[in-house]
Amino acid sequence: TNQSERTMSYGKGDVFAYRTYLKPLEGVKQIPESNFSGRNNIVFGLNVKVEIAGQDFLPSFTEGDNSLVVATDSMKNFIQRHLGSYEGSTIEGFIKYVGEAFLNKYAQIESVKLIGEEIPFHATTHSNDNSEAMESDLVFNSSRGERSQASIEMKRMEQRNEVITQSSKIVDLQLIKVKGNSFTGFVRDEYTTLPYDSNRPLFIHLNIDWEYEEEEDAYGNNPQSYVAAEQVKDIASSVFHELDTPSIQNLIYLIGCRILKRFPQLGEVTFQSQNHTWETVVDDIPNSEGKVYTEPRPPFGFQQFSVSKKDLQNNEEVAASGKASR
Amino acid sequence: TNQSERTMSYGKGDVFAYRTYLKPLEGVKQIPESNFSGRNNIVFGLNVKVEIAGQDFLPSFTEGDNSLVVATDSMKNFIQRHLGSYEGSTIEGFIKYVGEAFLNKYAQIESVKLIGEEIPFHATTHSNDNSEAMESDLVFNSSRGERSQASIEMKRMEQRNEVITQSSKIVDLQLIKVKGNSFTGFVRDEYTTLPYDSNRPLFIHLNIDWEYEEEEDAYGNNPQSYVAAEQVKDIASSVFHELDTPSIQNLIYLIGCRILKRFPQLGEVTFQSQNHTWETVVDDIPNSEGKVYTEPRPPFGFQQFSVSKKDLQNNEEVAASGKASR
Ligand SMILES: Cn1c(=O)[nH]c2c(=O)[nH]c(=O)[nH]c21
Ligand SMILES: Cn1c(=O)[nH]c2c(=O)[nH]c(=O)[nH]c21
Repeated sequence: TNQSERTMSYGKGDVFAYRTYLKPLEGVKQIPESNFSGRNNIVFGLNVKVEIAGQDFLPSFTEGDNSLVVATDSMKNFIQRHLGSYEGSTIEGFIKYVGEAFLNKYAQIESVKLIGEEIPFHATTHSNDNSEAMESDLVFNSSRGERSQASIEMKRMEQRNEVITQSSKIVDLQLIKVKGNSFTGFVRDEYTTLPYDSNRPLFIHLNIDWEYEEEEDAYGNNPQSYVAAEQVKDIASSVFHELDTPSIQNLIYLIGCRILKRFPQLGEVTFQSQNHTWETVVDDIPNSEGKVYTEPRPPFGFQQFSVSKKDLQNNEEVAASGKASR
Repeated sequence: TNQSERTMSYGKGDVFAYRTYLKPLEGVKQIPESNFSGRNNIVFGLNVKVEIAGQDFLPSFTEGDNSLVVATDSMKNFIQRHLGSYEGSTIEGFIKYVGEAFLNKYAQIESVKLIGEEIPFHATTHSNDNSEAMESDLVFNSSRGERSQASIEMKRMEQRNEVITQSSKIVDLQLIKVKGNSFTGFVRDEYTTLPYDSNRPLFIHLNIDWEYEEEEDAYGNNPQSYVAAEQVKDIASSVFHELDTPSIQNLIYLIGCRILKRFPQLGEVTFQSQNHTWETVVDDIPNSEGKVYTEPRPPFGFQQFSVSKKDLQNNEEVAASGKASR
């Protein structure tokens, strides 16, 4: 039996950890679509998932022999305490640091996967002595909107610990564009009941993943080549604003091209999009271009698509030769 | 650029479809751990996800050209109407039927993935003329507990449509065993705060996947070689009842061995388990072995493990030679 092929791992999910006064992220590259310039990291909130694997764990399954089992409860302690000693300023950097530490501490661990998801805390305001509204450095707004996420898979090799995969992500970015969106020209047959629509209020949910050409750029040690989720978000909304969308498919393709154009240090961007376009309830409001909408019923449509540097070249050529339709 | 490697697909999730009076599932093999003998299918409820792929969809992304786009709204209609014409009696069979139909209807679809998840409706009782409680054939209890799920991936080939992967599953099976569970003997070091525990109320959430050696057995056309999720559930609870558990790792291994023993038509069983063991609030109740517990706080531990026929042989040999500890 091919033991190396069998599914075998264990770990801990929902490891929550908050650190106050982590080193700020400063000095990232500025882009036209975004005012983002850094993160103060006064509250750095994370939800971590760790998954470890190694052949030495087999007897814990087949024999109930726990002698090499690192209790998942101890994994939680390990992660939380390492947040105290982490000296960088990004999620990407932190999970790399913890992954290394797991491999170095426990010989029976052959590989480790970590996902770190941001628990967002946004700025609030307070009044200063001149009755001006200022950004508070004490009170923060916990938020349930989009959040950044980083994942890493590392493996013990002969000479050193190697990074197998690394990726950064923004999840659950919800954007509505109130007009300027069509969906027409699709296949019509006996299964089609949807009419062609030249103007819909397009509400999308996006997950966007990006991968660096040089993995080292992902950790934020050199802020100039770090890509912040906040900037990716601002590019997405900016392209959505600029474009008359003929479909979600085309929209995500063009967002991908723009991200790769702004950040040449990235090799590929991957999208998962969902369509949550509102349903119209009141179509005609006298003397107004407004309408009333409600949440759509299920089901929801989705798309998955990756854009690479090569697409960017094609897209630029089309734009240069004046064939860009929009 | 390697176009065949890029992520590119789209589809529809949460396609709900209910069919009354689908053909009953009868004639499944009986096993000692279970009273299950069939499903009347008077209410057959499904949540379907469909994902389609094909190189012909590329211009819909890069150019906004929708001429080959099957609207995801039409996919919903397609699935729901095919539930009306399906003549079999299982989820596995239905999604195979729909997958074939998609490939046959639309030449631009190269491959299709479908997931069908049961929306459970359980039996209720009514009183008959002799004041006896009888099973109702009209009223059913919609339930949010564990449910079965099937998935399939199909691809258009030169000669015919081919099944790439097929699997059946039970998801979110929640089982508590009130005593007879220990977790001791694990690694103790500076990261360990969990004490050895010789008796814990072990609460687990399980997803169990099974794969047939002959894919054709999965669809239920020959009920004798079909494995019902209800039977897998009963094996899991039965093994849990019988065993003094030293860990979740060992428990899932032994459940896997039993499933493969009862159903030689299966090749592999894969587990995803989560530990949701209650926290003790009142330890000592006078004149009772009872205690009071509450939901655990996060995080939760998890395991992933697959068991194959080869393990079954090893396990039987150990048992035969009298070395089985439990
Ligand atoms: C509304 N709608 C569908 O039904 N299918 C699709 C699609 O593939 N892409 C869209 O942008 N919208 C949409
Ligand atoms: C309570 N607990 C841990 O902390 N780790 C583990 C483990 O690997 N397996 C268990 O069954 N329980 C448990």
